[in-house]
Parts: sequence; structure tokens; C-alpha cells
Amino acid sequence: MTVELSLAELAGRLGAELVGDGAVKVRGVRPLNEAGPSDLSFLHNPKYAAEAMRSKAGAILVSNPELAPGHNLLVMPQPYLGLARALEILCPEPEPEPGVHPTAAVNPGAVLGEGVSVGAQAVVGPGCSVGAGTVIGAGVVLGPDVTIGEGCRIHPRVVVQRGCRIGNRCVLQPGVVIGGDGFGFATVDGVHHKVPQVGIVVVEDDVEIGSNTCIDRATLGETRIGRGTKIDNLVQVAHNVQVGEGSLLVAQVGISGSTSLGHHVIMAGQSGAAGHLKIGERVIIGAKSAVIKDVDAGQFVTGFPAQPHRDWLKMNVRLRQLEKLEKRLSRLEAMLNERR
Amino acid sequence: MTVELSLAELAGRLGAELVGDGAVKVRGVRPLNEAGPSDLSFLHNPKYAAEAMRSKAGAILVSNPELAPGHNLLVMPQPYLGLARALEILCPEPEPEPGVHPTAAVNPGAVLGEGVSVGAQAVVGPGCSVGAGTVIGAGVVLGPDVTIGEGCRIHPRVVVQRGCRIGNRCVLQPGVVIGGDGFGFATVDGVHHKVPQVGIVVVEDDVEIGSNTCIDRATLGETRIGRGTKIDNLVQVAHNVQVGEGSLLVAQVGISGSTSLGHHVIMAGQSGAAGHLKIGERVIIGAKSAVIKDVDAGQFVTGFPAQPHRDWLKMNVRLRQLEKLEKRLSRLEAMLNERR
Amino acid sequence: MTVELSLAELAGRLGAELVGDGAVKVRGVRPLNEAGPSDLSFLHNPKYAAEAMRSKAGAILVSNPELAPGHNLLVMPQPYLGLARALEILCPEPEPEPGVHPTAAVNPGAVLGEGVSVGAQAVVGPGCSVGAGTVIGAGVVLGPDVTIGEGCRIHPRVVVQRGCRIGNRCVLQPGVVIGGDGFGFATVDGVHHKVPQVGIVVVEDDVEIGSNTCIDRATLGETRIGRGTKIDNLVQVAHNVQVGEGSLLVAQVGISGSTSLGHHVIMAGQSGAAGHLKIGERVIIGAKSAVIKDVDAGQFVTGFPAQPHRDWLKMNVRLRQLEKLEKRLSRLEAMLNERR
Repeated sequence: MTVELSLAELAGRLGAELVGDGAVKVRGVRPLNEAGPSDLSFLHNPKYAAEAMRSKAGAILVSNPELAPGHNLLVMPQPYLGLARALEILCPEPEPEPGVHPTAAVNPGAVLGEGVSVGAQAVVGPGCSVGAGTVIGAGVVLGPDVTIGEGCRIHPRVVVQRGCRIGNRCVLQPGVVIGGDGFGFATVDGVHHKVPQVGIVVVEDDVEIGSNTCIDRATLGETRIGRGTKIDNLVQVAHNVQVGEGSLLVAQVGISGSTSLGHHVIMAGQSGAAGHLKIGERVIIGAKSAVIKDVDAGQFVTGFPAQPHRDWLKMNVRLRQLEKLEKRLSRLEAMLNERR
Repeated sequence: MTVELSLAELAGRLGAELVGDGAVKVRGVRPLNEAGPSDLSFLHNPKYAAEAMRSKAGAILVSNPELAPGHNLLVMPQPYLGLARALEILCPEPEPEPGVHPTAAVNPGAVLGEGVSVGAQAVVGPGCSVGAGTVIGAGVVLGPDVTIGEGCRIHPRVVVQRGCRIGNRCVLQPGVVIGGDGFGFATVDGVHHKVPQVGIVVVEDDVEIGSNTCIDRATLGETRIGRGTKIDNLVQVAHNVQVGEGSLLVAQVGISGSTSLGHHVIMAGQSGAAGHLKIGERVIIGAKSAVIKDVDAGQFVTGFPAQPHRDWLKMNVRLRQLEKLEKRLSRLEAMLNERR
Repeated sequence: MTVELSLAELAGRLGAELVGDGAVKVRGVRPLNEAGPSDLSFLHNPKYAAEAMRSKAGAILVSNPELAPGHNLLVMPQPYLGLARALEILCPEPEPEPGVHPTAAVNPGAVLGEGVSVGAQAVVGPGCSVGAGTVIGAGVVLGPDVTIGEGCRIHPRVVVQRGCRIGNRCVLQPGVVIGGDGFGFATVDGVHHKVPQVGIVVVEDDVEIGSNTCIDRATLGETRIGRGTKIDNLVQVAHNVQVGEGSLLVAQVGISGSTSLGHHVIMAGQSGAAGHLKIGERVIIGAKSAVIKDVDAGQFVTGFPAQPHRDWLKMNVRLRQLEKLEKRLSRLEAMLNERR
């Protein structure tokens, strides 16, 4: 679908300040190096300022007009947010038709809200409830007694197991598994006896979960993902974990059982947290790092085991000077031996 | 499903010692902080002893009666095992009806044992054999000539590729892939030629495999997971790996090709092993660590490259004292320069 | 399927030098320790030379006849390539019949080339194009307007989302997700606003992608995997990443958004790259390592943060001598104090 708008109209709808020719029309959004005169582009990361100067875009979304003088500009303090809005306006995603595909297997005991779309080969179990306007993609499997809120996008091949609950406006990317059993075994004499995992997963409103990410059901009670949290691909969230609101879990993060994260926590790519920890609000855990004890609110920690980020940076500098240190020591030893 | 039992009956069935009022009835199992008078709860990790004291649970499973005086207690040396058994008794999981869902595609050349259940949209290929009492979940794909034992739970969207063999009483969580091709290429002049992967995967009895975990088929011969081993989510087991019996592979572990693990090995979360290694019995590999050479039986190793765990702990202490070390060295240098 | 050939014929077809009895017939390929008189085996890794000596194989593929004297040998400079070819000849993989399985849901607006096979429960969306000879496995979901080239193997339960393009002769292992949304959010006042991901993924010819690996669609433009690149299981490739030709991404690698890799890059298992980086041609990134700045062509880097591999090796040696260093320092301090 293509939508064409003048820059003046677009500026109005985005709440942006227009610098340049408001009569110019745009109908697509493209990266700086690919955009032509009928495309909008954007400059978010100053690293690409030179590319913006060379760009042939019809207009550029930018935070500061001095970054790309001589171009038609839409100036906003948050050009990346402007991009989000512009994409919604100029490149609206085609919506599937409401209704149930003839190859889907919807249990007669399931309740589908108004305007729900259920894709080909999907499975909706008994006792399920799917809110109005939600799209259930092809090949999705909803186990018995699953609740999905309104306006969700459940992409192809997602599995939500028995009894789990997804809020409103959630996005589950392909291959997500919600409610697989937690990894709980009682080991006696070297034999691992399965502890039945009878809890559920609760995903609050406005959460997005990336492709092939796994969120395990609780042993008892709930594993919970707080409102507005965004989770990237291939992330592991173990049983009974509590993730606060507005948090970001980047790709390949792993969180062990019963650990709780406060609101607005960021775990960077490939980082991890041991089990039964409390991670405070607004904590940042650096990429590839792992925390093995509680972390106070507001800390930025890195490394394994994680330490305050600045200490880690200094430690790395010193590590690379170990050779020099050793030489200084040898020199002193030589001096002292000489004097004997 | 709910089952109600008196504490006296429950103690008998668990083989636990009852401390308190045996006439009290329980019909659910809940965490300490959520349990009410008709719930059983449990205290496994002493970290939660204070919570046990405050709990309103009708009874608490505990290893030592002194940990929660004043409560009705079921005392067992292994309260976590008690929890496993109590959950089986009080919260039995509903079983799907035997039979083949009308939307499933079961090849006429497949053999299904007594009481097998095949879920909606599942695919069972030609030459497959599925043992009695096994549940094949919705959307599962069994390739040609796959063998699944008795009493297994193959959860939704699992794939088992051609010729692979799963033992009895195995549990495969959603999204597991058994028998994808190993990563084998013969590189000549920068071109990577695929080496056909014609071996299989053999999963022995009583193995559990977590959501979206991948176990690759062997180039030749078998990739093998030993009896009673439990594997968490998002784990990678490469071609021709041999995992011994009773081992634990925690989430996001990766094992490279042809490495063998002895019995009762533990690989903690996000750890890894290079290829063609021998990891002895009862080895523990710490979280986020990676082994790049053979490890003798009984060792506990951590770090990258992995070293004995105690050495790693000491090394970390010293690393954090590098600044101090450098200052001591500077002081000596100053002293010596002064004396010149 | 079994094919039987004399060693003389096989040597001819492989272009190998025959040492021994050309009349011997082989009809299988097995590992050294399992092979019998009618099997071919191979010696690729010199680590297994002793096993080759003991092997009962009818013949062994080897680079140097001195490695296994007294056996029938097929000598080739690249025995692993020989193995690849021998497996194709002796153990050809059975091909599914062309045609669409009756349970598949192929949109009438999709175009299937000659000899295409579509498996049970697969979904092919409107506007899709599938090239001649391609196999679409059971449970695969191709979204709208997806293009798949000729001669591909799209294994069970793969998802390719809207508009993405796969080249010729590509292999996608089970559970792969191509074209899930990139992880892009504009955060304002702690609220993460989704940035629509309207770009696509382009996978060039001769690429293989491992089980449950995820390659995200671009925000704008393309995420691209270069010709002949091979990707292992559980790998994360973020939006707008560009991977060059002939590269190898080993299991559990993660590449953050907008990073570009030159041709013939190797990222070893569990390694990572931060976003917006340029990784030059023929760079090697060691296992479990992560790069956080650009890397020049030809470098071999290891560690976190990554440094030249040799420096990393030396640093590790020094790290293990920290105790000794500290003792040397203490001795000097004692000497100097004594002299005061």
C-alpha cells in the first residue's frame, strides 16, 4: 500500500517543524543512501551525518537542522519516533481479513472476539479466549484455556501453552514459545525427577517478544513480563522470573529461575542473570555480561562476574598493561640484585 | 482438576513425617507468599525461610522442622522431591484423549501404539513408529522413519527429522528440533561444500529437552543423548556429540561437534564446549564459561578459557586488585629512584 | 537407498588416487570405529590416526597414504571434500515426490515452479513464487509475496515472512525464522514505541541456515546474507545487518543491527558483534568473543572486548601468573623494608 503526502501535511501530522519546501510530496521511506526525491529518510545516529549530506531524499527527519543543511527537513527532538509515526502513515502494513481460515482448527469451546483473524493451519484449543482485532498467524498453536487480549499480533508458528495469558496490543514474533515447562528437577542419587510445572506465564499489555524466544511457565504461580517490556529474539526467561515494566531484553539474553527485574531494566545482548536475584529498577547489564548477585537500582554493570561498568573499563585497560607491569617489576628486581 | 487430601493421607503417600494437625485438608500447591489454609507450600531454598514463617499455608514441605516452627509440616529429607510428588497427586495434568485429530496428517505407513494421541495439524511421516501412551502435540512434524518410544510427551511444533529415535518417557518441549543437519562443510578455495549429514540422533529413555533446543544429526553414525539427561531451552548440541547419562545442560549451552560428555556432567547456563573434546564424568562447567581442551572427571571449571573454579575465583580477586598492585609497584620505583 | 561401487569406480568418480585393491566393493559410509569391510570411512582430523589404523573399513579416504598404511586407501588432498562427494554417491538422500500435499494450504495467487514439492500442513501465501525443484517441508509458512529460488530445501516449520527473498539452492533447516521484525523502538519518557519494520531479508544463492536461527527484516531496505554463506543453529542476525559472501557464522552467534561483515568472515560459536560496526574481509572472531568496534580485514580477534588473538593468548598466560607477580612484588617490598 502506498500513501502520498506533501511535506506540509506530513509535518503537521508528525508535529514536526518543516524546513524547506512544504509542497514536495513523499510516498515512501528509505535509508539515506537509497532514498530518492519522492522518499522520506531519517538521520538518527550522527555517525551517518555525511551520508545525510549526500542523500537524494525528498526530505530528512532530523533532530537538528544544522546536521543536514540544504535539504528539506522535518525537525523533531525525537526523529526516531518521527520515523515510527511516518512509517505508520506512509507504509501501513496490510491487515489480514478477519475470519477463520478453512484449514484452521478452532475448538468449538474457544471464544473469538470481533474482527479476529485466524490463519491457515492454526490451532486454537478449548477454553481459549481471543480479544477483538487480534490476528492469530498461520500455524500458531494456542493450548487449552489460553487468553489473548485485544489488538495482538500473534505471528506464525507461535506456541502458547495451557492457561497462559497474553495482554492487549502484544506482538509475538514467529516461533515464540510461551509456557513451556520450567527446568525443574529434584535430583536424588543422581536421578533427576521432574517437578511438574503447574504455574502459568502472564504477559502484560504492550509487550513485544522476538522470534524463537522462550518464556517458561512457573513451577507454581506466575512467570510475569511487565507492561511495555520489549524482548528480542532467542531470549530465555526461566520459570518464576518477574520482569518489570518498560524493560528491554536484547537478543540471546538468559534469565535464570525466580530472578526479578525492576522496571526499565536493560539487559544487553548475550547477557545473563543467575537465579533467585533481585535486579533493581533502571539497572543496565552490559553485553555478554552476567550478574551473579543482586544489583541495586540504577547501576550499570558489565563483565563476568559483573562489576560497575567504569571499574570494568579500567580493569580492561590494566589488563592490557600487564606486560608493561611485569617489565617494570623485572627492572626493579634487576636493580636490587645489582646492588646486592 | 483438583484433588483434596488430608495431611495425614498426604504424608503417607509422600513418605513424609507429619508435624502438626493431620486432619487439615489441602487441595492445591502454591508458593509460600500466596498459599492459604487449604494449600500446601514448600521451603526448598533456605533463602526463603522468613517467608515460610509468615506463610498462611495449610502445610509446608520442609527438610527440617526447625525451619518453620508453628506450622503444619511435612518433613522429608528432599522436600523438592516431595513437591514433585505432591504436584503429581494434587495437580494432575489433564491428559488429551487418545486418537488422531481429524486435521492431523498421519501417513498410512506409520504405526501408532495403543492410546496414542495425535494433535491437530500434526504430521507423522511414513515408516514412523509411536509407542503406546505417547502424546504427539499439535503441529508436531515427525519425518520419515522416526521412532518415538512409549509414554512420551512431544509438545506442539516439535520437529524430529528422518530416522531419528526417541526413547521411552521422554519429554520434548515446544519448538525442539531433533535431527537438523550438522554444520559440516568442506571448504576448498573459499567455497563451502556441504557434507551430507546421513547419521541420526538417538535420545535415550527419560530425557527431557527444552523449548527451541536443537540437536543435530550426526554426519555418520549417531548424535546421542544419554538416559535421564535433562536439557533446558535454546541449547545447541552439534553433530556427533555424545552426552552421557543423568547430565544437565542448562539454557543456551552450546556443544561443538564430536565432543563427548561423561555421565552426570553439568553445564551451567550459556556455557560452551569446543569440538572433539572429552569431558569426564561429573564435570561441572560454570555459567558463561567455555572449555577448549579435555576436562578430567570430577573437575569444576569456570571462565573462558575455563580453569579450575577456585583458581578462577582467586584470579577474579586479583584482577580487582590490579590498581593496588600498580600503586605498590610505583611506590617501590619511587623509593628506588630516590635512593639513586 | 544403497548404492554399491568398486573402489576403482569410486576413485574415478572422486578423482582420488587408489592405493590397494580396486575390486573391493563398498556400499556405505561409516565412522572409523564402526566401519566394516563393505564400508568406506575417512580420516580428516589427524587426532583419529590411531583409530584409522585399527579400523576394519573396506577403504579409507585420507590425505596422505602414510597415515593409514596397510589399508585400502582413496587418497585426496581434501579428504573431507571427498567424503562429501562419496556421501552424495553412496548415500543419496531420498527426495520427496513433487506435488502439493492435500493438507497444504497454497494460496491460488502463489506460483509454484516445475517439480516443486509442498509438504503436509504447509502454508504458501498469496503472491509467493517458488522456483523449480524446491522442496517446501511440512508445516512451513511462507507469508505473502515471498520469493524462493530453485533447488532449495526449506525444511519443516520454517517461517519466511512477507516479501523476503531466498536465492537458489539454499537450505533452511527446521524452525528458521526469516523476516521477523527487527528490534526497533523509539524510547520517549520510558515508553518504547515500535518502529515499523518495513524492509525485507534477502538471502543470496547457496546459503545454508541452521535450525531455529533468526534473521530479522530491515527497518528500511534489506538485511542481506551473501552468496555461499553458511549459518549454524540458533544464530541471531539483527535488522539491516549485511553478511558478505562465503562467511561462516557458528552456532549461537549474535550480530547487532546495521553491522556489516565482509566476505569470508568467520564468527566462532557464541561470539557476538555490537551494532553499526564494519567487520572487514576474512576477519575471524574467536569463540565466545565480542567485537565492540570496527575490525580491519584479515584480523583474528578474541575475548571481550575482542583484541588480537595473540595478545589475548599472552594476556591469559599473564593472568594465570598474577599470583606469582604479586609474590615477586612482596619480596621486593620486604627487601626494601629490610634495608631501611
